[in-house]
Amino acid sequence: MEQLFSKALSVSVRCRDSEERKSTIRVTIDLQLSPSAVHKRNLHVRLTDDKDPYFLFTLSISEEDFQSLKAQQGLLIDFGSFPQKFIELLELCHSEQEAESPRFLLQLCSQGPTPEGPSSLSVVETNAFKHLNHLSLRLSPGSDREVKDYLASCLARLKEEREALELRLKRTEEDLSRQLSCTQQ
Amino acid sequence: MEQLFSKALSVSVRCRDSEERKSTIRVTIDLQLSPSAVHKRNLHVRLTDDKDPYFLFTLSISEEDFQSLKAQQGLLIDFGSFPQKFIELLELCHSEQEAESPRFLLQLCSQGPTPEGPSSLSVVETNAFKHLNHLSLRLSPGSDREVKDYLASCLARLKEEREALELRLKRTEEDLSRQLSCTQQ
Repeated sequence: MEQLFSKALSVSVRCRDSEERKSTIRVTIDLQLSPSAVHKRNLHVRLTDDKDPYFLFTLSISEEDFQSLKAQQGLLIDFGSFPQKFIELLELCHSEQEAESPRFLLQLCSQGPTPEGPSSLSVVETNAFKHLNHLSLRLSPGSDREVKDYLASCLARLKEEREALELRLKRTEEDLSRQLSCTQQ
Repeated sequence: MEQLFSKALSVSVRCRDSEERKSTIRVTIDLQLSPSAVHKRNLHVRLTDDKDPYFLFTLSISEEDFQSLKAQQGLLIDFGSFPQKFIELLELCHSEQEAESPRFLLQLCSQGPTPEGPSSLSVVETNAFKHLNHLSLRLSPGSDREVKDYLASCLARLKEEREALELRLKRTEEDLSRQLSCTQQ
């Protein structure tokens, strides 16, 4: 599993019957290569919220899935170029997210009253004339099992971070105490 | 929710058809008081493994549940004294867990081939004559949802710890740098 992208982005969240609101959502893109089969690649897209451990939406795109996505949305690129193009679009949204009226915007739209059912993540360009939908991906909310696995991975990473910090603190204390005692002598 | 006990204890794990093995399992006991009803108290027992995020067994004992547990196991105490007595037994096991042949031992027994189904946690005293079962509690493995909630709480705690460490590191660096520059002057 190779991580291609992971960034907390400003997303405009829209649910049925409720006002649009801004939310900060982490978009992560991983590429999974199967070592056995050359053409077995899967792109994993994951939406998470650094502040809400239960927030998880996922989408897995195989090469076959991509063919129907390509046809459906009139894409002109192949599976190999897709991740880079998708990342470019996300970077465009990121670069404009502080702007008052950003040209590129990430939208998460849910059919239901809250973003708990399947939701669409879209990259939308707004020009003087209209909203242009560059890409729209349908993500599913994580099951209890998927959220559990995601949280276990967060926990493992956080434990490593804590250990690294503890080590750094210990070394800093030792280093500076040593320097201090040298200077005092 | 008041935490009464939380300690990593050495437990002898026995599954059907497999050898007994030693494992370090954290036993946590929480008392939940309902502010509305005076007699609505629940004792929550939780087994977790600090090294395995997916390991979770739980048992909730209400005052009513305790009455049947009391009858079933011939206990002579009431619900109010039970937590303290249970903790004393756990402390006895803890104090002897390094001994070659401990007199008090915690056992986790599963009916299945792996400890994934309902399991019994027992405090067993071994004397020259026999094994004496002081207490036996039947715990259920956590569902995906329960494990998810448990992991989310671990994550929240770990994040706080990380923030505290980051702050301590920053302060240590600042403090010692200041002292160092004072000494050098």
